[in-house]
Amino acid sequence: MLSFENDYQEGACPQILARLIETNLEPLSGYGSDFYCERAKEKIRQACECPQADIHFLTGGTQTNQVVIDSMLAPYEGVAAAATGHVSLHEAGAIEFTGHKVLALPHHEGKILAEELEASLRAFWEDPNHEHMVFPGMVYISHPTEYGTLYTKAELEHLSSICEAYEIPLYLDGARLGYGLMSDRTDVTLSDLCRCCDVFYIGGTKVGALCGEAVVFPKSNAPRHFLTRVKQHGALLAKGRLLGIQFDMLFTDDLYFLLSRHAIDMSELLKAGLKKKGCPFYLESPTNQQFLLLTDAQIERLKRFTTFSFWEKPDEEHIVVRLATSWATTEESVRALVEAFDEILA
Amino acid sequence: MLSFENDYQEGACPQILARLIETNLEPLSGYGSDFYCERAKEKIRQACECPQADIHFLTGGTQTNQVVIDSMLAPYEGVAAAATGHVSLHEAGAIEFTGHKVLALPHHEGKILAEELEASLRAFWEDPNHEHMVFPGMVYISHPTEYGTLYTKAELEHLSSICEAYEIPLYLDGARLGYGLMSDRTDVTLSDLCRCCDVFYIGGTKVGALCGEAVVFPKSNAPRHFLTRVKQHGALLAKGRLLGIQFDMLFTDDLYFLLSRHAIDMSELLKAGLKKKGCPFYLESPTNQQFLLLTDAQIERLKRFTTFSFWEKPDEEHIVVRLATSWATTEESVRALVEAFDEILA
Amino acid sequence: MLSFENDYQEGACPQILARLIETNLEPLSGYGSDFYCERAKEKIRQACECPQADIHFLTGGTQTNQVVIDSMLAPYEGVAAAATGHVSLHEAGAIEFTGHKVLALPHHEGKILAEELEASLRAFWEDPNHEHMVFPGMVYISHPTEYGTLYTKAELEHLSSICEAYEIPLYLDGARLGYGLMSDRTDVTLSDLCRCCDVFYIGGTKVGALCGEAVVFPKSNAPRHFLTRVKQHGALLAKGRLLGIQFDMLFTDDLYFLLSRHAIDMSELLKAGLKKKGCPFYLESPTNQQFLLLTDAQIERLKRFTTFSFWEKPDEEHIVVRLATSWATTEESVRALVEAFDEILA
Amino acid sequence: MLSFENDYQEGACPQILARLIETNLEPLSGYGSDFYCERAKEKIRQACECPQADIHFLTGGTQTNQVVIDSMLAPYEGVAAAATGHVSLHEAGAIEFTGHKVLALPHHEGKILAEELEASLRAFWEDPNHEHMVFPGMVYISHPTEYGTLYTKAELEHLSSICEAYEIPLYLDGARLGYGLMSDRTDVTLSDLCRCCDVFYIGGTKVGALCGEAVVFPKSNAPRHFLTRVKQHGALLAKGRLLGIQFDMLFTDDLYFLLSRHAIDMSELLKAGLKKKGCPFYLESPTNQQFLLLTDAQIERLKRFTTFSFWEKPDEEHIVVRLATSWATTEESVRALVEAFDEILA
Repeated sequence: MLSFENDYQEGACPQILARLIETNLEPLSGYGSDFYCERAKEKIRQACECPQADIHFLTGGTQTNQVVIDSMLAPYEGVAAAATGHVSLHEAGAIEFTGHKVLALPHHEGKILAEELEASLRAFWEDPNHEHMVFPGMVYISHPTEYGTLYTKAELEHLSSICEAYEIPLYLDGARLGYGLMSDRTDVTLSDLCRCCDVFYIGGTKVGALCGEAVVFPKSNAPRHFLTRVKQHGALLAKGRLLGIQFDMLFTDDLYFLLSRHAIDMSELLKAGLKKKGCPFYLESPTNQQFLLLTDAQIERLKRFTTFSFWEKPDEEHIVVRLATSWATTEESVRALVEAFDEILA
Repeated sequence: MLSFENDYQEGACPQILARLIETNLEPLSGYGSDFYCERAKEKIRQACECPQADIHFLTGGTQTNQVVIDSMLAPYEGVAAAATGHVSLHEAGAIEFTGHKVLALPHHEGKILAEELEASLRAFWEDPNHEHMVFPGMVYISHPTEYGTLYTKAELEHLSSICEAYEIPLYLDGARLGYGLMSDRTDVTLSDLCRCCDVFYIGGTKVGALCGEAVVFPKSNAPRHFLTRVKQHGALLAKGRLLGIQFDMLFTDDLYFLLSRHAIDMSELLKAGLKKKGCPFYLESPTNQQFLLLTDAQIERLKRFTTFSFWEKPDEEHIVVRLATSWATTEESVRALVEAFDEILA
Repeated sequence: MLSFENDYQEGACPQILARLIETNLEPLSGYGSDFYCERAKEKIRQACECPQADIHFLTGGTQTNQVVIDSMLAPYEGVAAAATGHVSLHEAGAIEFTGHKVLALPHHEGKILAEELEASLRAFWEDPNHEHMVFPGMVYISHPTEYGTLYTKAELEHLSSICEAYEIPLYLDGARLGYGLMSDRTDVTLSDLCRCCDVFYIGGTKVGALCGEAVVFPKSNAPRHFLTRVKQHGALLAKGRLLGIQFDMLFTDDLYFLLSRHAIDMSELLKAGLKKKGCPFYLESPTNQQFLLLTDAQIERLKRFTTFSFWEKPDEEHIVVRLATSWATTEESVRALVEAFDEILA
Repeated sequence: MLSFENDYQEGACPQILARLIETNLEPLSGYGSDFYCERAKEKIRQACECPQADIHFLTGGTQTNQVVIDSMLAPYEGVAAAATGHVSLHEAGAIEFTGHKVLALPHHEGKILAEELEASLRAFWEDPNHEHMVFPGMVYISHPTEYGTLYTKAELEHLSSICEAYEIPLYLDGARLGYGLMSDRTDVTLSDLCRCCDVFYIGGTKVGALCGEAVVFPKSNAPRHFLTRVKQHGALLAKGRLLGIQFDMLFTDDLYFLLSRHAIDMSELLKAGLKKKGCPFYLESPTNQQFLLLTDAQIERLKRFTTFSFWEKPDEEHIVVRLATSWATTEESVRALVEAFDEILA
């Protein structure tokens, strides 16, 4: 049985495990105050070309979204996000749990349009009753999106300029950031993110770590007493070293980028193979997630060859499924899956 | 420099790291639905002699307290706890963050007295204005407490019977449970906890794991849709395997108990050595944390030999410090520390 | 200057003020435990033909929505509501403040369609990832809606049967309930609401009271310790008599219905007059709020004659405004306003 | 039967009712934006000799405490208050509901000591683990306290200087402020409060109004978007006029002070009479609430003559009861009650 269910089905990349073992007996202070956390932060600042960035490590994606959004919003503010955004749909109300509304914007293959964002912000401020409404206090985007799509640099700059005009922060959810940065079809760099965003995170869990996300505040703008906020959310790890050592390793010798690039290569190989077979794609994804539009019968046959994720049901006859690659995907398994589509599509 | 600062300064016990490596490339389903989580739960049920227990894994102690307390209380209820309880003092308001008051009870070396608990519950219900007050909806105890002390079986049974009479759950915070169970001076077993408590957790972070706590609902009484509650708190790990594999290992061949026993042995060795030197103890602790009552000058000298934790300042002349042992403490380091007290106390 | 801005611009109907004065010096117990609250509840039960109803008084509409929804939902649940519902748009996030998501449904002149509700509930339960999503735990409708429209009895019964099938309560926001019940074009009675809804409120603030809303739980199903929940929300009035006396009066000699009927008569007179003048209506409202679709120039002229409310801006050339009648609207003022439209529309 | 149960058992003082009737038919804009609210604010600013004060009206005491404390604290902060403070004990957890801890301080007949406050603040900041604790972000005092006692001007100034030194606001709960200001034994004026406090409220509900409290931010320091915060808490009254008209009246011709003075006169008459009879007082109260220490048998006899409030049970043999006077208390009823004590104490 092949495994293309998601990009977090294995443990960690071997280099990380080796590093955990090497450092295991060093006694280190807790709660993220150790040497490895510091060094990892410094390496990330260098990778971002952003020496003044505040950096904090958290354990998972939903946790990161909850802590960052809650601690950057005023209590009367909500966060604007695509209706398909992770915070809108798939976090069990983690944002509302902290008292904030997610203000849904239309999505276009997972992305929001700067024009639609601007129209919605303008409509809020022009509404004479806006004091009775939730203030839009932040814009959330994911990159890659939940559909694997990417913003262009021009699009990011446009969103950024709108946020600046309305004096609200732009937050980028980078749960799969590596795959975005290493895509063949992107002009966006880490340094661009530091320029365009007020906060973003570099996802580890889905890019080779056991767990962990690195939150970057590129303008030295971490919320006051952020460590206490993290603790209050139940999100402060006692053995902060677990996060520090992993990110220290990921940002050594470009490991984060090499792992991501491998997943992209595998994804492109898969896409090319499936296209050749005539497999119908739901949309064009330039990253490590590919979305297929299959019939029930095809899905039944797919199940015999590989694990995959159910995504959505656009109509009665079809289902969208996701196939994901990662650092752990082998060329061999991709070729085997492509071959299986002869039978699956038949 | 020696290291007695706490019991979470190293990584994980070597057996856990080895197991993470062995299982690393197995593709597993996410969010705690994998084989290792299931097997770890089954082993814990056996260790508890409690086949019907619901078990869930979380990442850290404050997170566990927050999720468990919030999901077991009605919204108009608070949790009664010692004024020195971790939830009362050292979780940055994580319980209040979820809308619940911590109702402080007097403490006796970290423990609450059943009689005082009963008096406080009775006073609440007899107060004609109690509908304008926070309902006591749960009792929280830690075992070992924040002062390393332990409840006896009779004390636990007494607390349990009061909770039963008032129809509220008894919750035991077992962040350091192993050290309690393996103390020379305890008559409490895991099976007793299943009988006396409505929920408790078996701490991993402070007993040899990289992270992780196992919440046990011994009466098949996990709150409805607990996984969604965990997700809503931002506490659901994508790679649930990280927790499952660790607890699977900890409950194989009594590893959890052997690690704990080693720490107790080291703690007893330290205690005996220091007592012989005439070192003043703040209280008598039967577990892996020892509390010394030192002067400022003694503390200055202590700093030259080992790391330790500041605990509290009972008066102008003294400071209470904590020395902690763990699975990683060596006999050699204990002997070196004891020896150093000739100079420290001088 | 005429006044058609809203239905809460005057104080209270004179009968209520007279009653407040008559009872003013009677010492009464606080927090809603007084004789008048009891008698008002009994009269409402009779008007509803629902002797077993639990009834509670609150001060205002948003407060009522917040307290009712928060106290009836489980923490992991949200409330489904029209995207134009008061709870969705105009309560400054009061629902999210209590940790619950408002799950937006498409609206049709303010109403939701049973078919669309059913489809959304079914989609949730069929989604294999639904444990990572907010559970739909209640359905909120307003009647009259924010656009003055009404559900038919058949529509209510349909919504009710879907809620029953999915085992979630149906909640009806009756901020303007009187105007709904006394409309010429309704077949819905209070007794129908008791049958179809699990909770609803009878609005006082917008139907002749100084303040006050009566929450009806027709199935003796008030949440446990509801008074404490109300207190916890900061919503318990010390002088509960203020609410009890008003509702006692409103439900004496059909006052609530007579006040509402007068407003409907005035609204129908206004509508007939404006239609005759060729005034464009935004939609057909059978209650006390009328929505006109005017140009900027017309609005400027309208301002010279009367106060009114801005509603929304459907396109660049038009604005929707609302004119509202109430118990205090005089026939004279309606005729004056109608006449003014010769000039306004010119 | 006499009535000394509390100071909110009657409706409103007659002048307020008369004013509500006079103004009843004036159409006014909603949500506190009307002329009477504005004029009441101006009159309060004059009474406070504080022209720059921001003033907002809310409906009740617990609501006011909740809204003010929540909107002035940072999310990681709690409020320090006497263990007997209303926010600590009798608001059903309304403060914790908004995510904030109430940090209990020792009380002395309801008051906190500046020295103890300072020690607790210093201890927090000196604790090396304070980032894991709730930050003290505000100090709450009530004046009069829940025991009818008062701070002296020197005590207020001392508390104020400590708050200033630690850069946290001082909040004074003035639910019964009138009785404090008009006590025979006070040197505190409204103007002192503006100088010493960062926010306080002038209670209406317990001093002659139907409902309503006036929050004063004497340093033009109302939290940003306070109206939206109020709305979000479900605390914004549609007919804001109800509050504005009452406070406009209360601050016309010194009505607020005359009503309060009458209650003080009645309280002093009662106290003098009871002392002469040898009645045991629990403590010395200079305001409108008197606390008696009676036996069960005496309480049984007391019940035959008057209503009163149970306060607390200091030991098995005694009960503390409260007798309260108000604007509505007559000299005749006081004399009758005093006389009854011949029999009650016998």
